[in-house]
Amino acid sequence: MLGPGKADLLERIRDTGSIAGAGRAMAMSYKRAWSLVEELNAAFREPLVERARGGAGGGGARLTPAGAAVLAHYRKLEAITAEAGAAEIEAIRGLLSDMSSEK
Amino acid sequence: MLGPGKADLLERIRDTGSIAGAGRAMAMSYKRAWSLVEELNAAFREPLVERARGGAGGGGARLTPAGAAVLAHYRKLEAITAEAGAAEIEAIRGLLSDMSSEK
Repeated sequence: MLGPGKADLLERIRDTGSIAGAGRAMAMSYKRAWSLVEELNAAFREPLVERARGGAGGGGARLTPAGAAVLAHYRKLEAITAEAGAAEIEAIRGLLSDMSSEK
Repeated sequence: MLGPGKADLLERIRDTGSIAGAGRAMAMSYKRAWSLVEELNAAFREPLVERARGGAGGGGARLTPAGAAVLAHYRKLEAITAEAGAAEIEAIRGLLSDMSSEK
């Protein structure tokens, strides 16, 4: 439903004001970016992304209030879980090979 | 490096005593299961899975102590983060469409 990739996509749509621009920033095809947006919009009660028609540049896209809320909850969830899980993450990291843990 | 799919694979190798059996339990080809095991073994300082040669059935595979440790840390991480993140997860769930939230 929602994972790191889709959260990044939402964030980049917010920042670039465009689905195409967000896709480019993630080295993702426009088609793929649109398809993920459609999945997100279908999965939630209200669309998370809406096309912003008109204006000087025409077109563009932006997060709806629901989209902004979902992104904020997701980022907070990441922060909370990273903090709560720090000891376990560190334990797993300590078992990684030197090459893997440098990544 | 390690996510839900690989953690499940480790758990099923532990439970079935075989990479083929674990793959079957996850509707995954033997080749795919082996490839994931090789990635895991390469990523960590010590192999997580070893082939258990000989015995009545011959062959088979089992988790090494490092494999058992990594799996245990990962499951604990999941439990901790699910608990810590419950409020945010619930907030996101509440925004899902009825069809999505039934899944």
